[in-house]
Amino acid sequence: MSGATPATIAPSARIYPNVQLGEGSVVGDFVIIGEPARGVAPGEAATVIGAGAVIRSHTVIYAGNVIGAGFQSGHGALLRESNTIGDNVSVGSHSIIEHHVDIADRVRIHSQAFVPEYSTLKRGSWVGPGVRLTNAPHPLCPDVQRCLVGPTLEAGAKIGANASLLPGVRIGENALVGAGAVVTRDVEPGAVVAGNPARTVKHIRDLVCPATGLNPYRAILGVPGDDSDDDDHAGR
Amino acid sequence: MSGATPATIAPSARIYPNVQLGEGSVVGDFVIIGEPARGVAPGEAATVIGAGAVIRSHTVIYAGNVIGAGFQSGHGALLRESNTIGDNVSVGSHSIIEHHVDIADRVRIHSQAFVPEYSTLKRGSWVGPGVRLTNAPHPLCPDVQRCLVGPTLEAGAKIGANASLLPGVRIGENALVGAGAVVTRDVEPGAVVAGNPARTVKHIRDLVCPATGLNPYRAILGVPGDDSDDDDHAGR
Amino acid sequence: MSGATPATIAPSARIYPNVQLGEGSVVGDFVIIGEPARGVAPGEAATVIGAGAVIRSHTVIYAGNVIGAGFQSGHGALLRESNTIGDNVSVGSHSIIEHHVDIADRVRIHSQAFVPEYSTLKRGSWVGPGVRLTNAPHPLCPDVQRCLVGPTLEAGAKIGANASLLPGVRIGENALVGAGAVVTRDVEPGAVVAGNPARTVKHIRDLVCPATGLNPYRAILGVPGDDSDDDDHAGR
Repeated sequence: MSGATPATIAPSARIYPNVQLGEGSVVGDFVIIGEPARGVAPGEAATVIGAGAVIRSHTVIYAGNVIGAGFQSGHGALLRESNTIGDNVSVGSHSIIEHHVDIADRVRIHSQAFVPEYSTLKRGSWVGPGVRLTNAPHPLCPDVQRCLVGPTLEAGAKIGANASLLPGVRIGENALVGAGAVVTRDVEPGAVVAGNPARTVKHIRDLVCPATGLNPYRAILGVPGDDSDDDDHAGR
Repeated sequence: MSGATPATIAPSARIYPNVQLGEGSVVGDFVIIGEPARGVAPGEAATVIGAGAVIRSHTVIYAGNVIGAGFQSGHGALLRESNTIGDNVSVGSHSIIEHHVDIADRVRIHSQAFVPEYSTLKRGSWVGPGVRLTNAPHPLCPDVQRCLVGPTLEAGAKIGANASLLPGVRIGENALVGAGAVVTRDVEPGAVVAGNPARTVKHIRDLVCPATGLNPYRAILGVPGDDSDDDDHAGR
Repeated sequence: MSGATPATIAPSARIYPNVQLGEGSVVGDFVIIGEPARGVAPGEAATVIGAGAVIRSHTVIYAGNVIGAGFQSGHGALLRESNTIGDNVSVGSHSIIEHHVDIADRVRIHSQAFVPEYSTLKRGSWVGPGVRLTNAPHPLCPDVQRCLVGPTLEAGAKIGANASLLPGVRIGENALVGAGAVVTRDVEPGAVVAGNPARTVKHIRDLVCPATGLNPYRAILGVPGDDSDDDDHAGR
């Protein structure tokens, strides 16, 4: 372990047994890591968090999460058990990730969002503030465990603030869901949808940045002259 | 008190005087129970919580709540003063119950929901993630205290994620409000409504579970061959 | 300092260096004040909070905020850095104010709301529960820093629960946005808008309080016989 930078953990944080916290990680005040799920003893399930994590204050991470390098949480984020989370993922302030969620590399989840069990968020997808994904077509149905199916966000899909996704919908690659939209059926790759219920209103190739006059997604679309770079927005 | 199982309280939790916590209850880290409302001295108002409660971390419960047995809170839930709450109720993570709310037995409130003062949630009703009930027809009206009236959810009514209910609307027995709907008028018993503004789109007798091919609410509807059982979803 | 009433700070609260907390202020449990923003050393940026503040439990206020007198936060509110906040402002429970937000005197932000960077909230404006303002027309655009522009709420504008405001929209003086509305373009002063997308449905002069039969905003409208007074709603 010579040369490794230990994690920095606030004195008020509660770290359960069997938590592996990557080197150089920072854990804020009033955080809980390794919270046991119902029926699981403290320390029974491992919690693995990669190097360089920033776990901001009041965040709760259950035992049974496997999280890659470069993870960031906002304040008061909640991650329940049995999630698989890639590298360079951020989960914003007050957002909730339920259990059995599959989150790929470079996914950004902004603030106050809700991602239920059995959802799939593929590489580089983006979830805006207050977005709710859903997975139960008929709440309180006695068979609800048989039909729970979360939405799938294909790579690069983006969901605008306050939008609602119905159970099992698939948001196509690089599609853009407008703020406040209610998505009741699958969205085509590259489509821009809006409204309640959501309808396709244009394609991302038709978008124009008000600041530059250029297409904001020209790098994705393979337009010549691309000069795009990584966005540093932390999604807190 | 021989034979009683005491409550288990995390050392970091703050319990004010005059809190009665039922036997076998569990209180998580960074919880506050008995927080005094404005103008009330600590311990002046009683807080009564029944047996077997699970109060998860970062939850705040004000003095002046009377809560039945089997209560569960998610993480970071907030219950202000003077609420009456029945047995086997759950209030999910980051949800807010204001004051003078009447919540009957077996009500489940999911995550990040908002229930304002003078709302009524009857037996077995269900509130999805991010739902907002409202009670002020005209915010900042100088007479606002005279006209505040919360929605009423009749028994078994279910409100989908991100829906908004306008002040005073009544959601009929076993009705289902779709995700993202904006409900501006009363909803008939058993109706399924969706849209902004919400319109009736079908009746719950017309619903079909995608997993079983059966009506999800056949037990409620009294259809022969019912084999329903209690849903164990914790609504965290 | 003779005669000054010191602040009352819960033992569990974390107060960083270089925080000026006005006399008579009250700070609840599990609060953080002066949290350093990324790349800023603890205590490097000043945090100034005026007299008589009530900072409720689990709230996080970053270093670099300048806040007037009579400030109130709900539980679990989050204010990031570099905001300018006037007198008698309240930020409700679980609400998030990002950075570089300009909030004038007497603004009330209710619960679970989201106000992104570069938003402007003018005197006496009101933001309801679960409202999301947005500032990025095209999330993850590589030029996003060049075009971020938050909404502007003119004096007395009111935004109903769960509404979404698109980047840069201007809500006119005393206008009223209905619950669940998705505002895609500017709103005229005094207009009442609703729907997705939001359309003008009436003028505030046409509103009638169900309790009194009077116009709720007659004081604003200069109608004779005005007897309005300040609303005491704390917006928690």
